[in-house]
Amino acid sequence: MQTQTLERMESEVRTYSRSFPVVFTEAKGARLTSEDGKQYIDFLAGAGTLNYGHNHPKLKQALVDYLASDGIVHGLDMWTKAKRDYLETLEEVILKPRGLEYKVHLPGPTGTNAVEAAIRLARVATGRHNIVSFTNGFHGVTMGALAATGNRKFREATGGIPTQGSAFMPFDGYLGEGIDTLDYFEKLLGDNSSGLDRPAAVIIETVQGEGGINPASDEWLQRLEKICRANGILLIIDDIQAGCGRTGKFFSFEHAGITPDIVTNSKSLSGFGLPFAHVLMRPELDKWKPGQYNGTFRGFGLAMVTGAAALRHFWSDDTLERDVQRKARVVEDRFQKLATWLTEKGVPASERGRGLMRALDVGTGDNADKITAEAFKRGLVIETSGHEGQAVKCLCPLTISDEDLIEGLDILEASIKHVFG
Amino acid sequence: MQTQTLERMESEVRTYSRSFPVVFTEAKGARLTSEDGKQYIDFLAGAGTLNYGHNHPKLKQALVDYLASDGIVHGLDMWTKAKRDYLETLEEVILKPRGLEYKVHLPGPTGTNAVEAAIRLARVATGRHNIVSFTNGFHGVTMGALAATGNRKFREATGGIPTQGSAFMPFDGYLGEGIDTLDYFEKLLGDNSSGLDRPAAVIIETVQGEGGINPASDEWLQRLEKICRANGILLIIDDIQAGCGRTGKFFSFEHAGITPDIVTNSKSLSGFGLPFAHVLMRPELDKWKPGQYNGTFRGFGLAMVTGAAALRHFWSDDTLERDVQRKARVVEDRFQKLATWLTEKGVPASERGRGLMRALDVGTGDNADKITAEAFKRGLVIETSGHEGQAVKCLCPLTISDEDLIEGLDILEASIKHVFG
Amino acid sequence: MQTQTLERMESEVRTYSRSFPVVFTEAKGARLTSEDGKQYIDFLAGAGTLNYGHNHPKLKQALVDYLASDGIVHGLDMWTKAKRDYLETLEEVILKPRGLEYKVHLPGPTGTNAVEAAIRLARVATGRHNIVSFTNGFHGVTMGALAATGNRKFREATGGIPTQGSAFMPFDGYLGEGIDTLDYFEKLLGDNSSGLDRPAAVIIETVQGEGGINPASDEWLQRLEKICRANGILLIIDDIQAGCGRTGKFFSFEHAGITPDIVTNSKSLSGFGLPFAHVLMRPELDKWKPGQYNGTFRGFGLAMVTGAAALRHFWSDDTLERDVQRKARVVEDRFQKLATWLTEKGVPASERGRGLMRALDVGTGDNADKITAEAFKRGLVIETSGHEGQAVKCLCPLTISDEDLIEGLDILEASIKHVFG
Amino acid sequence: MQTQTLERMESEVRTYSRSFPVVFTEAKGARLTSEDGKQYIDFLAGAGTLNYGHNHPKLKQALVDYLASDGIVHGLDMWTKAKRDYLETLEEVILKPRGLEYKVHLPGPTGTNAVEAAIRLARVATGRHNIVSFTNGFHGVTMGALAATGNRKFREATGGIPTQGSAFMPFDGYLGEGIDTLDYFEKLLGDNSSGLDRPAAVIIETVQGEGGINPASDEWLQRLEKICRANGILLIIDDIQAGCGRTGKFFSFEHAGITPDIVTNSKSLSGFGLPFAHVLMRPELDKWKPGQYNGTFRGFGLAMVTGAAALRHFWSDDTLERDVQRKARVVEDRFQKLATWLTEKGVPASERGRGLMRALDVGTGDNADKITAEAFKRGLVIETSGHEGQAVKCLCPLTISDEDLIEGLDILEASIKHVFG
Repeated sequence: MQTQTLERMESEVRTYSRSFPVVFTEAKGARLTSEDGKQYIDFLAGAGTLNYGHNHPKLKQALVDYLASDGIVHGLDMWTKAKRDYLETLEEVILKPRGLEYKVHLPGPTGTNAVEAAIRLARVATGRHNIVSFTNGFHGVTMGALAATGNRKFREATGGIPTQGSAFMPFDGYLGEGIDTLDYFEKLLGDNSSGLDRPAAVIIETVQGEGGINPASDEWLQRLEKICRANGILLIIDDIQAGCGRTGKFFSFEHAGITPDIVTNSKSLSGFGLPFAHVLMRPELDKWKPGQYNGTFRGFGLAMVTGAAALRHFWSDDTLERDVQRKARVVEDRFQKLATWLTEKGVPASERGRGLMRALDVGTGDNADKITAEAFKRGLVIETSGHEGQAVKCLCPLTISDEDLIEGLDILEASIKHVFG
Repeated sequence: MQTQTLERMESEVRTYSRSFPVVFTEAKGARLTSEDGKQYIDFLAGAGTLNYGHNHPKLKQALVDYLASDGIVHGLDMWTKAKRDYLETLEEVILKPRGLEYKVHLPGPTGTNAVEAAIRLARVATGRHNIVSFTNGFHGVTMGALAATGNRKFREATGGIPTQGSAFMPFDGYLGEGIDTLDYFEKLLGDNSSGLDRPAAVIIETVQGEGGINPASDEWLQRLEKICRANGILLIIDDIQAGCGRTGKFFSFEHAGITPDIVTNSKSLSGFGLPFAHVLMRPELDKWKPGQYNGTFRGFGLAMVTGAAALRHFWSDDTLERDVQRKARVVEDRFQKLATWLTEKGVPASERGRGLMRALDVGTGDNADKITAEAFKRGLVIETSGHEGQAVKCLCPLTISDEDLIEGLDILEASIKHVFG
Repeated sequence: MQTQTLERMESEVRTYSRSFPVVFTEAKGARLTSEDGKQYIDFLAGAGTLNYGHNHPKLKQALVDYLASDGIVHGLDMWTKAKRDYLETLEEVILKPRGLEYKVHLPGPTGTNAVEAAIRLARVATGRHNIVSFTNGFHGVTMGALAATGNRKFREATGGIPTQGSAFMPFDGYLGEGIDTLDYFEKLLGDNSSGLDRPAAVIIETVQGEGGINPASDEWLQRLEKICRANGILLIIDDIQAGCGRTGKFFSFEHAGITPDIVTNSKSLSGFGLPFAHVLMRPELDKWKPGQYNGTFRGFGLAMVTGAAALRHFWSDDTLERDVQRKARVVEDRFQKLATWLTEKGVPASERGRGLMRALDVGTGDNADKITAEAFKRGLVIETSGHEGQAVKCLCPLTISDEDLIEGLDILEASIKHVFG
Repeated sequence: MQTQTLERMESEVRTYSRSFPVVFTEAKGARLTSEDGKQYIDFLAGAGTLNYGHNHPKLKQALVDYLASDGIVHGLDMWTKAKRDYLETLEEVILKPRGLEYKVHLPGPTGTNAVEAAIRLARVATGRHNIVSFTNGFHGVTMGALAATGNRKFREATGGIPTQGSAFMPFDGYLGEGIDTLDYFEKLLGDNSSGLDRPAAVIIETVQGEGGINPASDEWLQRLEKICRANGILLIIDDIQAGCGRTGKFFSFEHAGITPDIVTNSKSLSGFGLPFAHVLMRPELDKWKPGQYNGTFRGFGLAMVTGAAALRHFWSDDTLERDVQRKARVVEDRFQKLATWLTEKGVPASERGRGLMRALDVGTGDNADKITAEAFKRGLVIETSGHEGQAVKCLCPLTISDEDLIEGLDILEASIKHVFG
C-alpha cells in the first residue's frame, strides 16, 4: 500500500490513520476492506456515524436514484422536494409517534455547527450567556462549542485564548457512589455568590461518547430536567453520538422520558455517512431572525434523501430498537465476562454503556491501546475513549449481522487474552 | 406546490426560501426546475459552491461509480484510496504547476470549520492571539470565525457575548480613492500604543463575497503580503468563495502573484455541491499535534472523489480559465451598460468584480431587492450582497453555456428596465 | 441633619448610607458620632479596614508629624524615605520573624488593584490563564478581579459581558459535612477532560469575608497548598480582609502554617483607613518588567507612614495577637449563646469565624436586616454578609475597649431579643 | 542614600525610581528634596496629580484641622459631613457655574476604578458592550480599563488573555494632516458589516497624556459629540490627567464647549496627592442598583476634605485659569524655540499641548531619555511619554512660581544644548 503521499501531504493533526495505518478501499455493512484485500470488522463505525453500516443498499439506492433524476444536491437553504420530504418524514415517523413538537433548524452539516447554533439560540432566547456543560463532555471544537467541551487536548490548542461563556458541572457519578452531583449544581444555582452565572442552558450528552461512554441514569436526567424547568434554564440534549438509535431508542433521552427544549443530531442522521445535522427546538424558542445563522452546506440535498430513507426504513416500526437491545445484551455479557477475567488477572476492569454504545474500561490508556492494536492486527477496527483513553468502546453498526458481531467480540477477547494472558 | 410543512417545520432562520418561495426539484448545469415545471437560470449557484454547475455528468459518473464499488463514504480521517487520490491530484494538478508547497488539513467539511482551523493554527504557530480581518469580511459564523466576520446581523446574534481575538482593518478602497488603507494598518503595527495587539495572522478574501463583491487590487495585496512578512504575521487567504476558479484562476491570489502562508478552500472544492473543505499550510507551520482539531465528517469520501475528478477534468489545462475570463468580460460589459443606464435614470450604479464574481451595485438594498424579485418572476435566480444588500451579484456556474448566460443577462436587463424604466 | 444634597447628588449605587442614614462627623477608637451628637459603637470598622480603630492617636501623630515635615505625600513609585521605612519595617517586624521571604509590589492602593496585579503576575509567571477561585469568594469588582468574585450582584452588572479566565471550586464545607471539597478539585485537576483548564493559580481567602465569614480549616488549607505544589499551581492568599491581625495573627494563613506564593493585603494595611495595598510574592516569581503594571497612587506616602507606624506599634510583640484571641472568645461565647437562644425561638442560628472576624448566622437576610436595623437604632453599627446577607458579622476594631465590646454585644443581644422575643 | 532595601525588596515592576534613582524626603510647591539635601524642580508633579504643588499650605491646614477634630477618615460609602461638603462644593463651585447637571459616583479612589465604573455604567445603561477608545489612549490597567488602553507594554502583560469589549479608532490627527479621522469612525458606524459592534460609549482623553500629550481639536471633539448623539452612543471624557485645571479650564472639555454624558476625574481631584476619584454622569444614566459597584476606599474622607478645600480655594474665581494660560504661553514659547533649535541641529522636533500639559517631541525615545537624564543631573525631574517615549513632557504644578518655572525651563534648555550641542 502506497502511503508516502498521505504521510507527506497530510497535516500532523491526522489521528485515526496512526491507529489503523492501512489504506481502506471498500466497505459494506460492518466490514472494511484495505487495499491489500484484508477485511476488518468495524466496531468504530465512524464514531457512531454509521449506525446502519457502510453503504446500506436501501439508502444507496435512494441516493443513486436521486442522482439519476438530477435532484438538487446543493441549494443553500432553498426549498426542495428533498427537504420537504425529509421534514415530513421526520415529523411523521419520529416526532409525532413520540409526542414531540419541534421546529427544525438545518445549520451547517456538522455536529459542531449544530451545537454552536443550539447554544446561540439558547442565549438569544434567554438573554443570558452561561451554558452549563459537564465534566468529560464533548460538543465540538469550533470556539463556541469548545467552550462546552472538557478535553484539554482541544482546549489547549487555542493559542492561549480562554474559551468563554461556559461552566462545567460534575456529570452523573463523577463524585463517586452515593453522591448525587446535581446537589452541587442545585446548590450553586440557588446561591447568589456561588460564582455560577445564571445559565441560559444546560447542554449534555445522556451517554457521553468521547468522554468514555458514560451513561447518566434516568433518574438523574429526570432531576436535571426538573432543575432546569424550575430555574428557567433550557435543556439541550446533544444527541449527536447517542442519537439515531445508538442507545436502543431513536433519541437517547427517550429512556428517561424527558423532553429537551433543544436537541442536536448529526453523525448517523443521514444514515449513510453524509455530513448532516439538525437542531430541534420547541416552537416558542424559535427566536431566530431570517439569516441570523447561516452556512453554505445547510440542508445538504443528498443527506436529506438518505436521511428520510433511513427514517422510513428503520424507524417505521420497532424492529431495529428491539434488535439493538438484543445485541446490546450480547455485547454487555461479553464485556462483563472480559472485565471479570481482566480483574482476576490483576487488571481492574469494568463494563458500562447503554444499547450499542458500550465500553470495556481497562483502567489505563496504555492497556486500552495494547488491546486495540492487537485487535487491529487480528482484523478488528476498534477505538478507545475517555479522559485517558482507558475505555475500549464498541460502536459497531446497529445493523451488524450476528456473525460479524460474534466474530468481532471473539477477536477482542483473543486480543485481550493475548495481551494480558 | 405544497409548502405548508416547510413553513411550519423550518426555523424562522431560513432565508433563501423567502427570496425564492418555490420548491425546487431538479437541476442541471445552470438551470433549476421547480415543482411546477418552471425553469430558472441560476446566477447564484450555491453562493459560489457550484462553479461547475449542478449535477455535472463527469462528476456524477465518478460519484456513482464510487458508490457502485462500495467505496468508503465515511471513514473519519482514516487513510482511504479516495483520500490518497485527492491529495495526489491536488499536488499534481494544482500545487506543483503553481510552484506551491503546502501540507493539507482536512477539517470538518464546511468553510467555517476551515477558518476556525486556520485561525487556531496561526495562533498556535505564533503564540499570539490577534487575527486581523477586514471591513465587510465574511469568514463564517461559528464563534471563532465570527470574530473575524464584520456583519452585525451575525455579530448581534450571540446573545450579548462579545467575540474576541480579532481586530478589523479597512479593506482596499474602504476610505475612498487616493487613500491606501494599508497605511493605516502599517501605522498601527509600528505604533506601540495603537491598541492593535501584534497579530498572529491576517485573514482576507481577495474578492470579498458576502461583503459586496469587493476586489482588492493586486498591488494592495502585494503590499499586504510584504507587511505581513516584515512583521512576522501569517497571511491567510480565505479562498472559500473566490477560489476554485471563480476569479479566472484556481486560487484567487494567483492574480496578485502572492503566496499565502495558509489558504482555506471549501464551497466549490468538491465540484458537486458536496460539503468539503481543506486548509493548506506551509509545511513549517504544521504545528498541530495529532488529533488537536477534529470533526466527524473530515475527509468526506464522496467529496474527495468528485473533488479529485473536478481537479483533473477542469484544471489539467487552461481551457476553463480562459473560458471564465471570456465570460467575465461578457458579464462585465453588460453590467457596465446597465450601470450606465441606471445612472442616467437617476439610480447611481456601478460595476465591479473579478472573473465571474461580479456585482452590479445599485446603491440601496431596496433597489437591489426589487430587481432580484422581478428577475425571479422572469426565471432568474440571482441574489444580492454587501453591507446593505445593495449589490446584485452574478455568481453563475463557470461552466454556464453562452446561451444560458445571455438569457440570464437578458432577464436581468429586462427586470431592471421594468423596475426603473 | 441635612441630607438632601447627598440624596440628590450621589449615585443610586450608594449602599451603606441606606443602612445607616445619618451623617457621621467624628470617630475615635470604636465609636462613631453623627451630626446630631449621637454616638455609635462600630462593629463594622470599614469592613475590616480599621483594625486599630478610628483615628488611633499614635498613627495620627505619625501622620501629622510627616505632614508637618512636608514629607512626600505623592511620588508615583519614586523612592522615598517613607517607602524605605515601610519596606524595612515590613521586613523586620513581619516577614523575618515569620521566616517569610517576599518581594513587594505596591500597585494602586485598593484591594482590587492588588488582586488584578497578583492574578496577572501568576499568569505571566506560569504562561497559563486559569485562576481558580471559590464559591462565595470576593476579590474585587474591576473586570480582572470580578472574574474571581462569586457574587451575582456584581457579575450581572457588567452589561452582559461574561468574565473570563476563572473557574470556581467549592470552598471548604460547601458540600456539607463529611465531604472534602478538595477531592473534587483534585479529581478535576487530574482528569484531562474535566473542563478545568490547568490553573495558573488558586486565589482564596482563608476566612471569606463578604461571602459570609466562612473560615477554611487548617487541614483543608494545608491540603490545598499541597495540591498546588504538586500541580505547579501558584497559591495566592487574598488577605485583604482577613489579614493585618483580624484573625489573631498578622497573616490569616499563619494558623494553617502554609506559605503562599503570592499574598495580597489592603484594608487595614495603612492602619489608619488610608487607601493602601501591596502584593507580596516569592522572589523567583517577580517576572514583572519595569512599568508593566502601573497606577497613579501606588506607593501612597501617607499610608506608608501610618502603615510602618502601625506595624511597629502593634506587631513588635504578641500583645495584640493575644488580645484579639481573648476578645474573640468573648464574641464567640456571646454569639454562641445568641445562636442557641434564637434556635430555641425557632430561628435556626449558628456562630462561626476566626479571631475577631465572626458571624452570627440567622438563616435569612430578612432576619439579619431586622436585627441590624434595630441595633442601629440602639447605637450599634453592624452589618451583614453572606450570599443572602444572612450573617450578622462582627468586625469590630481589634483595639476596641472591653467596655465598648461588651456594650456593643449587649446592644446586639437586646436587638435580637426585641426582634425575636 | 541607602537604597539596598528598596532595590532588594521592591518588585522589578518599579519604574520611576529607575529614572530618578535617589531617595526623596521632602517636597513643597514645585520642589522636591532628596535625602542628600539636593533640590529638584518638579515638572512631573505626580504625572498630573499635583496640580496645586506638593503640600500646599491651605490644603494641608484643612487636612490637619480635620485630623485634629477626629473627622471620619474612612467610612466606606457612609454619609459624612466631609462628603456632604465635598458634593456641595463640587455643585456650587464647579457644576452650577458651568451649567452642568451631574450625579456623582465615588468608586474606589483610583483612575482605573473610575474608568471601570464609567465603562460598566455605559454598558448597563445602553445594553451594548462595545467601548470605542482611541489610538494612544490610556485609561488604566485593570482588565476592564486595559481593554480601552492602547499601550502594548500593558496589553502584553496579561499572560496571553486578550482583552475584550473595546475597539480602537484613530485619534485626531492620527492619519496625518487633511484627514479627519472621524470620517473613518462614522463610516464604520454606518456600515452594517464593518466589524464595529454598535458602541455603548466612546471614551476619550481630550488631550492624551501617556499617549504623548496629543490634544484633539475643539472642532474634532464637537464633531465626535455630534456623532455620539446621532448614534445613541454615550460620550465619556476621561479627564483624569487633563482635568482639574491642567489645560487651563477645570474640565478639559470646556474648551470645545461639549457636554459629556459621563466624566471621570482622579489624579489632582483631592488637590493634595491623596487617592481619590469620582465619576460624573447625567442623572438619567444613573442606572446603578444599590451596591452594584463597590470598593473599600470609595469616598476617602481626607481626600474629600482637601478636594473641597482645593475647589473653594482655586476655583471660586478665574485667577488660576488665567495664570495657567499665561504660564502655558511661557512654556509653549520656550518649547517652540527649543524645537526650532533642535530641528536646526538635525533633530526634527516639535511642540504641542494645551495649557500646562505640553510636550516637546524630540523624535525618538532615545533622544528624549538623554535629555531627561541630563536634566535630572542638573536638578529637574521631567519625564517622557508617547508610544516610543519620544515626547519630553511638562506637567509642572499649575501653581509653580514664575522663578521655578523659568529655572526649570532653563535647566531643560541647558540639558538639550548639552546633549545635542
